[in-house]
Parts: sequence; C-alpha cells; structure tokens
Amino acid sequence: MAGISPRTGREPAVSIVMSGGYEDDRDDGDEVLYTGEGGNDASARRQIADQTLTKGNLALARNLTLGTPVRVFRGHRLDSKYAPPVGYRYDGLYRVEDMWAASGIAGFRIYRFRLRRSEGQAAPWTVQPGVLGPAPRTAGWVQRVVRDSALSRRVKELHGFRCQVCGITIETAGGFYAEGAHIRPLGSPHDGPDVEENILCLCPNHHVMFDLGSLTVGDDLGIVGAPGKLRLVDGHLPGQDFLRYHREHYAELRRPPAQSEE
Amino acid sequence: MAGISPRTGREPAVSIVMSGGYEDDRDDGDEVLYTGEGGNDASARRQIADQTLTKGNLALARNLTLGTPVRVFRGHRLDSKYAPPVGYRYDGLYRVEDMWAASGIAGFRIYRFRLRRSEGQAAPWTVQPGVLGPAPRTAGWVQRVVRDSALSRRVKELHGFRCQVCGITIETAGGFYAEGAHIRPLGSPHDGPDVEENILCLCPNHHVMFDLGSLTVGDDLGIVGAPGKLRLVDGHLPGQDFLRYHREHYAELRRPPAQSEE
Repeated sequence: MAGISPRTGREPAVSIVMSGGYEDDRDDGDEVLYTGEGGNDASARRQIADQTLTKGNLALARNLTLGTPVRVFRGHRLDSKYAPPVGYRYDGLYRVEDMWAASGIAGFRIYRFRLRRSEGQAAPWTVQPGVLGPAPRTAGWVQRVVRDSALSRRVKELHGFRCQVCGITIETAGGFYAEGAHIRPLGSPHDGPDVEENILCLCPNHHVMFDLGSLTVGDDLGIVGAPGKLRLVDGHLPGQDFLRYHREHYAELRRPPAQSEE
Repeated sequence: MAGISPRTGREPAVSIVMSGGYEDDRDDGDEVLYTGEGGNDASARRQIADQTLTKGNLALARNLTLGTPVRVFRGHRLDSKYAPPVGYRYDGLYRVEDMWAASGIAGFRIYRFRLRRSEGQAAPWTVQPGVLGPAPRTAGWVQRVVRDSALSRRVKELHGFRCQVCGITIETAGGFYAEGAHIRPLGSPHDGPDVEENILCLCPNHHVMFDLGSLTVGDDLGIVGAPGKLRLVDGHLPGQDFLRYHREHYAELRRPPAQSEE
C-alpha cells in the first residue's frame, strides 16, 4: 500500500498508510507525528535526502489548510504498539493539525505533520489484548484552523475562498484558506441545518465578528457592522430565514450599552 | 449565593450559581444553557420583564469575547438531575461558547449563554448514585473563539487588543477581541514555553497566517508575508529564539512550489 494517496498535490490526501520505514514517525495512537514522503530508503528505513513540499506532502498541506480529515491505515510492520498483528487496519479519520519543516534524525530536511484522531470514533486498538488506551491529549495546544465539512468546502470553492464580506483570501502553502460559517448555528437549541444556504464563506476576522454579533446581514444582503453588501456568486444564495434568525438572536449584541453602575 | 459575580460589567464573571428560578435554564451537565440575570421573579420562578445587556450579562459577554472560563456552582434547589443533594457544589470551569438574545418561555427578552465544561476535570456528579454520566457532546458545533489563558490575556491587554501585524482590533458586545498566538508552539515535539515572550497578540486572520507559515517575523522584527514591522508596546518583547524557531520550522511553508507532475 502507498503512503499518501492521491499524491498529485492538487487535492487533499484521502488516505495515508503507516507501515514503518520512516525513522522520524511517532505514534501515540490518537496523535501521530507523520513524516512526509520522499528522500527515504525504505529497505534501510532511514532518510538519505531532503524532502520537498510537493506531491503527497503538498496534498497533506492541503488537508491542513482545508480542514479535510484523512483516513489512516496502520500496517503490521509498523514499529508501534498500535500496529495491528497482521495485515492493514483502517483506524479512522484524523485531522492534520499542524505541519512544519524540520531536520530529521539523519540530518535531512523532512516535513512533519501532526495528525489527531477525530472525536466520536471507537479506537480499534483498545479492543486488542496487551494494548493500552490512547495517550492523553497534550494540554494547552490549540489549533487555529476551523474544521471543515464537504458542504462548507463546496461553498468556499464556489466563492474562490474569498470572504463574502471583505473579498480577501488567505494564501498558504496548502492553497487558499477561508472558513465556512453557519448562519443559524448547528446544535440545540438553534438547530440550524447543515445545508449550503446556511453557510457563508468568511475570512477568520469576519467569522469571529459574525459569531459574536458584531456583524449581521439584512434582508437586502446589506451588511450591518461593515461596509457594503454580501458578495454573491452563482450557485450559492444564503437563506433569508437563516439570516433573519441570526439577526433576531445576535444583532442585539452588536453595540454594548453604556455600563450601568451597581 | 448570587447568580453572576462580579457583576460590574467591567470584568468577565468569575463565577455563576445555578440554583433554579430561571425557567429558561437547561442543564445537561457538561453543557448548560444559562439564562442571563434580570427581569425574573425569583419566588414565582418566571420572567416578568425584558433583560438588558448590562451588569452580570455584560460580564458573561466578556467571558465569551476573552475566552475566559467561569466557575460554575450548582445549588440543591436546582431542578436538574445534576443538582447536589444538599448545599452548593463547585462543578468546575466552564467556557462561554455562545450567547444570543431570545424570547423566553414567558415572552420576555432574555440572554442565553451556552456554557461547556472545560476538558480534563472529573465530573462531580458521576460519583453520585442514580446520576448518569454527562450528555454526549453535540456533534458538528464549532466555536470560532480561541481559548484564552491568563498569560495571553495579559499580552492582549498590553497591546490594547490590537494586532501586532496590522493594528486592527475587533469590537464586540463583550469588549475587544484579539488572539494570543504562541510563537514556538506548545506541546510535544515543539515544547514551546507558555511565557509572555512566546506569545503574540494577533487578529484571527494573521493568527491563521502565522500558524500556517504564511507570515513570519525576522530578527529585526520585520514581517515576511505582510508589510511593515511587528508592532511593539512597552512591557512585551517577543523572544528572538522563539521567532527563530518559528522561522526555521514554518518559513519554508510560505510559498508553495510549482506543482510537479506525477
């Protein structure tokens, strides 16, 4: 099985296989430090050249920027207590939380990716005898990138990753970055639906402002809290009902009243 | 015991008490929908007037904007399976994840706050007989606001919540919003320390760019990836070692290479 696939570099990776061979890998079960591909002598299991930010490595950079999770498989030859006894095992979806360049054990440049297992999945290795549960989560580490879904990714692509309020986009090694913001929030008690009409494509700044009520959108798509009107593209129209729900519940937060004395 | 304290509205709340009396409260243990204060007839346990975004309600808005958690106490008169049998119980730190205005059961305007218990704390109620574990977390809901710490809050206050790259700040009902960005990341394998010299005050857009390597800072504090130099204030100087660590590990990600063909 291949390590990272697909590895055209044009799309985020769908799956990766951990099967040993990369001396800089580290496997804590729920958290993995995954070494990028290239420059590796598989038979000797060590790095013999620098890695480049291309192909599979560029694909994983796109997973980070887009918030797209990747499927992780572990092979039996992996030197880890989380390796399956035989064959290959599918171990669920992992998020790419961070990536950076480093000098590996052998002194060559490698790319390292921190992967974290998405919540709400039973861990296959906990049912195996002699294997402990997952390592405790590192405290204090917070990733800035917002998780993605197929729907919000589609909305972002329709808008070319440009913010519907200010028109900017953020360029990263993994491509353009924007965030899908739900207009009527998901989850009880708001119970907004996860549909494209309930999603805006926003830059992080305007996403925070929208979530905190500093910015709302009128029936005419005029923006309250920033200049202009909401930018539209063919194929995506935010729902008036959702915008109204947001106004009714968040617009009042927009301007703080004068502080009253006790 | 008072509901929200302190309630000057100038500082985030330190603690809240859930002791019943607010018909719009909802208690799922780890997740709470907390009704703001005011307009309530405590003896009849119902709303008799509109609430305003002042005093304790404004304090909780500041918890949301600043990412400051609040201590939650439950009283025995609370109508919830998570209430203690007698007296008041300290139930740990909760984050204010969301707030909005709504029309309550009695038809008056109320402010609602969604609180979520911070991770890594044992739940007091799980050791009580006859009480189930916490409710499962609502799937799919993502809060945009980044968690805070005392250190990063101090850095943000020193900078007046202005981004050290672009100088903007974000105004919300709960005051100014900015984010504390660790230069050398916390957690293994980076193991950056949680000290003021390792924190920058950034707007969300420049925080994302910094985390994804689209923006780095040179030894002369010149910004690579945006115009100008890092803005400084008295009393806070980012560490050169931390900036160098960030450059060495993230600067290479800045410009994607031309995509290579397979």
